Amino acid sequence: MAFEEFRPLDEKSLVEYIKAVPSLSSKLENKFDDLTIKEVGDGNLNFVYIVVNSAGSFVIKQALPYVRSLGESWPMTKERSYFEARALKEHGRLNPEHVPEVYHVDHIMSLISMRYLEPPHIILRKGLVAGNEYPLLAEHISEYMARTLFFTSLLFRSTTEHKRDVAEFCGNVEMCRLTEQVVFSDPYKVSQYNRWTSPYLDHDAEAIREDNVLKLEVAELKSKFCERAQALIHGDLHTSSIMVTRESTQVIDSEFAFVGPMGYDIGAFLGNLILAFFAQDGLAREGNDRKAYKEWILKTIEDTWNLFHYKFIVLWDEHKESSGEAYLPGIYNNPEVQQLLQKTYMTDLFHDTLGFGAAKMIRRIVGVAHVEDFESIADASKRATCERRALELAKTLLKERRKFQSITEVISAIQKI
Amino acid sequence: MAFEEFRPLDEKSLVEYIKAVPSLSSKLENKFDDLTIKEVGDGNLNFVYIVVNSAGSFVIKQALPYVRSLGESWPMTKERSYFEARALKEHGRLNPEHVPEVYHVDHIMSLISMRYLEPPHIILRKGLVAGNEYPLLAEHISEYMARTLFFTSLLFRSTTEHKRDVAEFCGNVEMCRLTEQVVFSDPYKVSQYNRWTSPYLDHDAEAIREDNVLKLEVAELKSKFCERAQALIHGDLHTSSIMVTRESTQVIDSEFAFVGPMGYDIGAFLGNLILAFFAQDGLAREGNDRKAYKEWILKTIEDTWNLFHYKFIVLWDEHKESSGEAYLPGIYNNPEVQQLLQKTYMTDLFHDTLGFGAAKMIRRIVGVAHVEDFESIADASKRATCERRALELAKTLLKERRKFQSITEVISAIQKI
Repeated sequence: MAFEEFRPLDEKSLVEYIKAVPSLSSKLENKFDDLTIKEVGDGNLNFVYIVVNSAGSFVIKQALPYVRSLGESWPMTKERSYFEARALKEHGRLNPEHVPEVYHVDHIMSLISMRYLEPPHIILRKGLVAGNEYPLLAEHISEYMARTLFFTSLLFRSTTEHKRDVAEFCGNVEMCRLTEQVVFSDPYKVSQYNRWTSPYLDHDAEAIREDNVLKLEVAELKSKFCERAQALIHGDLHTSSIMVTRESTQVIDSEFAFVGPMGYDIGAFLGNLILAFFAQDGLAREGNDRKAYKEWILKTIEDTWNLFHYKFIVLWDEHKESSGEAYLPGIYNNPEVQQLLQKTYMTDLFHDTLGFGAAKMIRRIVGVAHVEDFESIADASKRATCERRALELAKTLLKERRKFQSITEVISAIQKI
Repeated sequence: MAFEEFRPLDEKSLVEYIKAVPSLSSKLENKFDDLTIKEVGDGNLNFVYIVVNSAGSFVIKQALPYVRSLGESWPMTKERSYFEARALKEHGRLNPEHVPEVYHVDHIMSLISMRYLEPPHIILRKGLVAGNEYPLLAEHISEYMARTLFFTSLLFRSTTEHKRDVAEFCGNVEMCRLTEQVVFSDPYKVSQYNRWTSPYLDHDAEAIREDNVLKLEVAELKSKFCERAQALIHGDLHTSSIMVTRESTQVIDSEFAFVGPMGYDIGAFLGNLILAFFAQDGLAREGNDRKAYKEWILKTIEDTWNLFHYKFIVLWDEHKESSGEAYLPGIYNNPEVQQLLQKTYMTDLFHDTLGFGAAKMIRRIVGVAHVEDFESIADASKRATCERRALELAKTLLKERRKFQSITEVISAIQKI
């Protein structure tokens, strides 16, 4: 422990800190003369330092006790750093290829050091705005989701293991409360934090606040988010929580982790891909109409769900004799009932995914936090047109999600708008 | 604290214990010459002593680290006593008229002292076997259920309060595991603990183990039991967890309490009343055909649900401006949406209630623990006939619960068998 109590680090005190922590200074072979430190936190909640010298590198992420962009007026528990580290390590153990290695954790300082994801790694959302294709993205992220969700659910775990994690992650309540507010509540009411592309979407925002059916559906999803302890989820799996190259996919920023509904993670990812899709018309330029890119996004959406489904079922079949409490082999080991229950389970999960995905889309258009995909469209009228299409799809998905039988039908619905 | 470490008390050491605990000895005005102590635990899990002298009285309940009737071969955590006391106090705070007052709690000794429910209080199940009517039962138990479930749910509570209880009661995991096994698993597979009225019900028990649809439905209920943190439930609200007179209804034995699905409590009560109904034909004697009594049971089932529904909605309407996280007034305060969501919520709860009630019925006929209602029928063939009717109804309720629109339809289904 380098410091006895929490203090926000700056580039100077960070060097002191590193010198005092052997696991960090040894990564740099204790050489501090050629050290470079860069603060790169573009998020709202943290300082993120990249530390590099000729011998090695790492990232230092320190949680601050408030939402950075809103200043100290929106306090945020810095204990989230503990849960981020806990989830990073657990998900990393299950997916070492898709989660950066954790080098050092300091709960008092609300600080984590982890692998520096060196260039050309960039935030996936920036890649989507730039129009880059990532041929392995669906393969990788479906692997990540299938493994994190399956192995931390009652399909694999005993009740004892499950309740231990449920209890521990109840401590991350402040982050859950933030999600409840900004995803499931604020967009459906008048809130000082809401914003949208005004005046173009004024009517659309109002229509959401007055749509009783939509509000009933979002209440049901909120209940699931608050009450259903299904798996240890990432809790914020949008396209800015993923760093990519053409060969690598790395999931970061798990400070919202808790034991919640699986569909919230899958929906976050797919919903944000759908936002990226609808932004493309606004990002098109002379000589690059983005038509082929839109097709790639749609294919990635389709592949992600289908690969997830496939991999999840493979894990289930492989581990059906495990200690998972949900479906004991003594009851469910005949092939017919096994198939029936997998179908029921995956159908429910698909509908949860569509609902949560839709809620995540809506909140990015009429809520507090917007996405670069749309924000990069300078022309407000053009941006509003893109956003309105995304809203339209999201409302359909949220209200009629139980009618969708396959991801192909979702793709068709996207294309129809 | 009278003793430094756990030891099972007997009638002699209990006196020593009481002498060493001022809150207990003062109840007896420190007089020990006219003391009577009677061990009355007819349950499986505990010693229960009634302590009375001329000055006062109380009950001492001590949890043992195994299931008493199965000896030390089925270990049971004695920490359940902590959760029993915790739930008794919380539910008692919400319903002082229907929960006995707690006088003293000793976690080391796994011991609770509470009000002695003096005669003519008897266990409700015994009253049902005897054919006694309790004109206030539906009124009282619906009040108890409406208040315990409403005030400990997100309809009234903030996420912070909710997750605090969820986390704490995750510690009662051993009791949840016991329920998972004996209610949701063992009856649907071959298990050394299962028993039934053999040979009459051999085929019925086998049919349950081979009914794929039934097993799918029970898996869904088990998931809800394991994953859905809806309210601080009693966890074992059958008719032996309730003591009654014509004027008084008292809920005891909350050692299975945790934050779980509301329908599990309501279903336990109603399911056990339905078992009592089907037992009556076997309990009929010359001169008492129990026909009128069966009508009273049906009326009590109907009244309990209807009164619960009414009281729950009244609480909801009264507290819709509370800090409950589920439906924020800023979103859901127009009468139309409020009515819609109450309807959806109560319909779901009704279907959960029927499902859990049915599961509780099935497990009492083909699982480890049977009920006195049927066990009192000495003629095995006659008993089997009663049990088979109850099984038939339970299977219908479990598989087709979503088709039932009202409790009246359930009553009709009971009458038709």
